[in-house]
Amino acid sequence: MSKRVLIIYAHPEPSSLTRQLVDVSVECLTAQGHEVLLSDLYAMGWKATFDEHDFPERANLERLSFGAESAHAYRHRRQSADVAAEQDKVLAADAVIFQFPLWWYGMPAIMKGWIDRVWAAGLAHGYKDAGNTYRYGDGAFKGKRALLSVAVGGPAADYSPRGINGPIEQLLFPITHGSLYFPGFDVLPTFAVYGTGNLTAAQATAAKEAWRTRLKDLFTDAPIPFRPQNGGDYTPHNELKQHVAVGQTGIMVHIASGETAQPQPHETKVAL
Amino acid sequence: MSKRVLIIYAHPEPSSLTRQLVDVSVECLTAQGHEVLLSDLYAMGWKATFDEHDFPERANLERLSFGAESAHAYRHRRQSADVAAEQDKVLAADAVIFQFPLWWYGMPAIMKGWIDRVWAAGLAHGYKDAGNTYRYGDGAFKGKRALLSVAVGGPAADYSPRGINGPIEQLLFPITHGSLYFPGFDVLPTFAVYGTGNLTAAQATAAKEAWRTRLKDLFTDAPIPFRPQNGGDYTPHNELKQHVAVGQTGIMVHIASGETAQPQPHETKVAL
Repeated sequence: MSKRVLIIYAHPEPSSLTRQLVDVSVECLTAQGHEVLLSDLYAMGWKATFDEHDFPERANLERLSFGAESAHAYRHRRQSADVAAEQDKVLAADAVIFQFPLWWYGMPAIMKGWIDRVWAAGLAHGYKDAGNTYRYGDGAFKGKRALLSVAVGGPAADYSPRGINGPIEQLLFPITHGSLYFPGFDVLPTFAVYGTGNLTAAQATAAKEAWRTRLKDLFTDAPIPFRPQNGGDYTPHNELKQHVAVGQTGIMVHIASGETAQPQPHETKVAL
Repeated sequence: MSKRVLIIYAHPEPSSLTRQLVDVSVECLTAQGHEVLLSDLYAMGWKATFDEHDFPERANLERLSFGAESAHAYRHRRQSADVAAEQDKVLAADAVIFQFPLWWYGMPAIMKGWIDRVWAAGLAHGYKDAGNTYRYGDGAFKGKRALLSVAVGGPAADYSPRGINGPIEQLLFPITHGSLYFPGFDVLPTFAVYGTGNLTAAQATAAKEAWRTRLKDLFTDAPIPFRPQNGGDYTPHNELKQHVAVGQTGIMVHIASGETAQPQPHETKVAL
């Protein structure tokens, strides 16, 4: 079935591996019959910094509170036009793919600024003005899929389970879990190409082939099994219940390892 | 003994808690006899996006490679003036403090862009043009201290060892370990204030008092005991040796106290 896919892309160089992988995305998804929307952040001159210009009609001119102004601007449709346009694209999409080079173990600033600005209060957090009720598996983007595609300069060994940088999926947890699963996306395991500083032509070809395979399964691959906030694993204070992941702590406990039940129906969390 | 401390600060609102904590830093460090340098990123209009304008005299006009151009610009002193000025401040400082609100589990884009742009090749990575030789405990910033001071909107329980967001020190690992320990800093445990969305005056006062205490110990507190790359714990492929943190994987194995106890962030818990 035809779907709509939004690509958020952050690299200014047309011959970069990141851009080559974006081209593969457009070609492959279009060939599958999907509609592709592309936000080429560098080409758009995307404003990275979240500041007072994001709120053309302030609720409070005395004091700039990002949370309060973001909620006010979103609710009253007084956001800056570039932000509203990106939100419309996300809301229209069935899946969002982020394609970027890993810079200092995170997104380039221009893409972090896309998250900072587009993820408005009332939409990506504080959904339905219900505080933290709709979060981690619930929220405005529930039912959509998200996927990170990262070009990593360093060698894969540095990102192995005992590699010195840490495993890529743990380094990206603030993004996959904190920025994408939080507002409701089902997040797929990250696609990473390593050693991009000096790929051979054959390695680049292999990377693009591997990416094609991932794109074919975009709507069928199993997402990372993050535990839903309202699925029964958490206390009312949003801490894991004692019988879940017994004795364990840290970010990885929020990924179900098979011992938990399926997410509860929508009605469960409304009762919270 | 008098030292020099650089503060990198990212919030545009003069009455924000972040700014109040910056004011405490300046007052407290000055009273201790230290010299304070302040980079107020919003006031400076800091350019967040790392792009071709960072390289006024390109080595290669055909293709923009950030790594190659950054190394070339740094080596030949052809960087943009704002970047060179920040590097000079860091090199002159004995400690660098980053003060920011936690946005989507990371730095605001304007501060991520400070890292992206200021951490040049040849300086913060690829030091001495020796690839990955000087890294994680070695590097240009060896002997300096770094400290994050974050204002967190959500409640402390969400960041507790089994809280739904994940522990703050693990969420910030890409910054503390990946962006600061990597180029040589000794990184202190993070100072975090929670529930900043609706602090009472008394809670804000308590947070500032806790921050004063941390500042007094800036040059004596024990840093997070990250394992040095060249300290004997890693193989030549930069994976932990088998006898170290036996059978464990993930980001936390790179903290030496894994054998004893996990270091906890110094946090101010606010009852909401």
